[in-house]
Amino acid sequence: MFEGGLDLSGAAVRVALPELQRLTNELLRASGLQVDHAAIVTDVFMRATYRGVSHHDIYELPGRLAALAAGKVNPNPNMTIINKYAALENYEGDNGLGELGGMFIMRRAEQLADEHGIGLCAIRNSNHILASTPYVETAAERGYIGYIVTRGAPTMGAPGRKEKVIGTSPMGYAVPTENDCHIMFDACLAYASNGVLAEKAEAGESVPAHWGLDSEGRPTGDPAAIAKGTRQPIGAHKGFGLTILGEIITGILADGQIIDEPQDGTGLVGMPSHTAICIKADGLLGARRFRRRTTELAERMEARASGLQLPGQRSARSRNEMIGAGAIELKEPLLARLNEWSAKLGVQPL
Amino acid sequence: MFEGGLDLSGAAVRVALPELQRLTNELLRASGLQVDHAAIVTDVFMRATYRGVSHHDIYELPGRLAALAAGKVNPNPNMTIINKYAALENYEGDNGLGELGGMFIMRRAEQLADEHGIGLCAIRNSNHILASTPYVETAAERGYIGYIVTRGAPTMGAPGRKEKVIGTSPMGYAVPTENDCHIMFDACLAYASNGVLAEKAEAGESVPAHWGLDSEGRPTGDPAAIAKGTRQPIGAHKGFGLTILGEIITGILADGQIIDEPQDGTGLVGMPSHTAICIKADGLLGARRFRRRTTELAERMEARASGLQLPGQRSARSRNEMIGAGAIELKEPLLARLNEWSAKLGVQPL
Repeated sequence: MFEGGLDLSGAAVRVALPELQRLTNELLRASGLQVDHAAIVTDVFMRATYRGVSHHDIYELPGRLAALAAGKVNPNPNMTIINKYAALENYEGDNGLGELGGMFIMRRAEQLADEHGIGLCAIRNSNHILASTPYVETAAERGYIGYIVTRGAPTMGAPGRKEKVIGTSPMGYAVPTENDCHIMFDACLAYASNGVLAEKAEAGESVPAHWGLDSEGRPTGDPAAIAKGTRQPIGAHKGFGLTILGEIITGILADGQIIDEPQDGTGLVGMPSHTAICIKADGLLGARRFRRRTTELAERMEARASGLQLPGQRSARSRNEMIGAGAIELKEPLLARLNEWSAKLGVQPL
Repeated sequence: MFEGGLDLSGAAVRVALPELQRLTNELLRASGLQVDHAAIVTDVFMRATYRGVSHHDIYELPGRLAALAAGKVNPNPNMTIINKYAALENYEGDNGLGELGGMFIMRRAEQLADEHGIGLCAIRNSNHILASTPYVETAAERGYIGYIVTRGAPTMGAPGRKEKVIGTSPMGYAVPTENDCHIMFDACLAYASNGVLAEKAEAGESVPAHWGLDSEGRPTGDPAAIAKGTRQPIGAHKGFGLTILGEIITGILADGQIIDEPQDGTGLVGMPSHTAICIKADGLLGARRFRRRTTELAERMEARASGLQLPGQRSARSRNEMIGAGAIELKEPLLARLNEWSAKLGVQPL
C-alpha cells in the first residue's frame, strides 16, 4: 500500500534516472545511512521503480525518510547473527530499513548456496522490504533461483472468516533464463493488495466478490468495503495453507514475532521478519543447460497459448523502456515531497 | 483424480486395518516389488487412507496394480543418482511407482538436511505420488519441515486462457508441533482438483465461476463443463506464477520433462518428476522451542477466530478415529476389485 499518502493526480514531470538515483542516495546518506548501506537501499528503490507501477517504489521514499527522521527506523542497524546451522542462518535486524535487511539476507543466502547448493537466511526485527523483485532479481542476475518471503501483522482472514488471523505472506522469486527477462514473480497471497483495493475504489470499479468480506463478514464486490473488512486468501484453504508456511519460515525461523505477538519492549505488533532462500542454478545441471531449460519452459507455454503473459515480462519491458529513455515521469506531488526533504536534509533538490 | 473408475455408490464393509495393510503389502509383493519397496509403498497407501477421503488413497490401489501388471510401471526400479552438489541431488526414477520415488527423495532430503540444515532432492521419470501428505507427514515426525511438489502434463490454464499450458503443481508441507497434529497441507494450485469437479458434478452442485472455463473459454459454474474445459489457477496470475516455480524445481531440477515435452524413447507426455525439500526444524531454534513456536502460531490464530480450521487438523482427526477403531469402512466395489486382484496374483483375499 502506498504509505506516503500522496495525491497522485498531479501532472507528471520528467526526471533523469541518474538524478533520481543521486537524490535518493543523498537523502538516505543525509538521513544517517552509511555509504554502503545507502548504496544498497538506493539500488532497491531504483529497481523497484523500474517496474513502473508508481507504488512500492520511489513513491514510498518520503515515507521512509519520515520514519528515519522520527526515529521509528534505525538508520545504522547492527545486523548480528543469532544462530547458524550449516546452510541455515538467522539474524537480528536491529530495526533497520527492510531494503537493507532484505538485501543482506539475499546475499547471505547466495553465499550459503555457493557452499551448500541451497541456503536459507532469515532476519527478524526488520522493516517493510518495499517489493520482492529487487532482491530476487539480483539473485537471478548472479545465477541463483532466488526466493524471498516476508511477514507482518495479521491483515487477512481464514477462508470465509472475517477475523484477521494472519498476514498475506508477500513473496517473490526469480529464475535466470537465456535472456535478460527472468521468470520473476512478486505477489502476496491475498486476492488483492491494499493498493489494488484502493486503486479500484478510486476508479469506482467493483472487484470479484470472492476477494474479501465486508466488516460484517459478508462477501462483497465493493473494494472499499473489503478494505474496511477482511481480505481473503487466494483459493481459500489453499492460499491460507501457503500463507501459514510463509509465516513459519519467516517469523519462526527468524526467531522473531508471529501472528499478533507484540515485540519485546516496544509492544509493536507486526514487526517484519523476512527469509531468503537461494538455490545455485548451475548446481545440478550446469549454468548453460539450466538457462536453456528455463527458456524452453517459457517457450513451450507460449507455443501452447499465443501471446501468453509470463511473470516478469511486464516489469522487464518497463525497465528496458525506462532505462532506454534514461528518464522517468514522476508525479508533481512526489517531486514536491522529495524537494521538501532535500531542503530539510540540506541536499541539492532535483 | 480417482484413477480406477470405481463405482463408489455401493454399500460399505468394515475392514480391519492390519488386514488392509497385509493385503496391500502382499498384492504389491506379488506384483514384483521387493520386500523393502513393498513396505514403503504400503505405508504410503495406509497413511493416505487414514485421511478418510476415499480418493488419492487405497481406492487407487487397483489402478496401480493394473499399471504394474501391464508393464506400464516398473515394479523393481533402479533409482540412480544423476548429479549432486552438496545439499542438492537429482535422481533417475526408472519408471518406478511414485510412492516409492516420493519416499526415496524425502528420506534423501532429510539426510541432506541433517548435514546442511536444508536439503533438496529431485527425481525424474517417476509416477503419480498418490498424495503429498504421507511424505511430508513422515518428515515432520522425524523433526523436519517437509515439503514436496510434483509435476505432470499440462492440465491447467493461464489466467483467463482456455489453453492448457502447465500442470497444477500438487504440493504439500508438514511442520512439527508439540502435539501429534502437524500443521500439514496438501493441495494443487488449481481452484479444484479433477476429483472435486467430479464429486460436484455427481452431486449436481455448481462451483464458483472463477474455478474454470468451458471448452469455449467462457467462465462457468458447471463442474462438468470445467472438467471438459480448463481449470484456472488460484488467484489468477498469483497461482499461475507459483505453479511455474513448481514446474521449475521439479521438471528442470530433476533434469526431467517440462510442460508438454515428450519423454525420450516412449514419447509419453507428463512423466512425473518430484522434488522434496527438508529443513531441520531444530537447526536454528532447538527442537523444543521450534515446536513451542509452531504450536503457539496455531494457538494465536485460533484465539483470534474461534473454531478456526487449520491445515492438518481434519486429517489428524480422521487418522486418530480410524486407528482408534482399528478398522475402516470400504465400499464394496473396491473390495471386489481388491479380491479380484488377490485371485489373479495368488494372494489371500480380505
